[in-house]
Amino acid sequence: MSSDAKDDNVFKALAHPKRRQMLDRLKDEPRTTGMLVEAFPEMDRCTVMMHLKVLEEADLIIARREGRERWNHLNAMPIKQIHDRWISEYASHAVSVLDKLKADLDG
Amino acid sequence: MSSDAKDDNVFKALAHPKRRQMLDRLKDEPRTTGMLVEAFPEMDRCTVMMHLKVLEEADLIIARREGRERWNHLNAMPIKQIHDRWISEYASHAVSVLDKLKADLDG
Repeated sequence: MSSDAKDDNVFKALAHPKRRQMLDRLKDEPRTTGMLVEAFPEMDRCTVMMHLKVLEEADLIIARREGRERWNHLNAMPIKQIHDRWISEYASHAVSVLDKLKADLDG
Repeated sequence: MSSDAKDDNVFKALAHPKRRQMLDRLKDEPRTTGMLVEAFPEMDRCTVMMHLKVLEEADLIIARREGRERWNHLNAMPIKQIHDRWISEYASHAVSVLDKLKADLDG
């Protein structure tokens, strides 16, 4: 997969609040799919699994089977990559626009 | 619009390589829609305008009419916001995982 296509998948995976919340849940420790289903009672099991699939395809989650359980581990590396390649430059751009505005207003 | 819905729009808008390239073109200076159509000969005018609409809905572009021309200005602020609220924390998470791995390997 090209790096563009990989980035597309990461951005698409992040473009849903529930998927962002699911990643937030995995930040401190891996969780089984069952634990995630319990943590999000407003979604049924199928919806949780569908979101997990999207996250896994974007490589944001790595799943490991242990017996009958599936442990979902956060992989933050693709987010770091879009950050380094792309996001950080725009964040600095916004900051420099704000600084310029502030300087104009001050003087 | 909720902050979740705004973030969704930003991530969705960034989830296309041509839209990311179009923003890249606007980083140094605003450009008219005609200039952007010329800069991307592989897309027809309608496709360029469709992408501009998605970027404008995500507030990543601010358009100003001057006579018959439409000038597209980059607004990097929504990218800075997702950076501050969300991306930077995961980027640090990835770095700390890498540091731990390196420390483990170093013994």
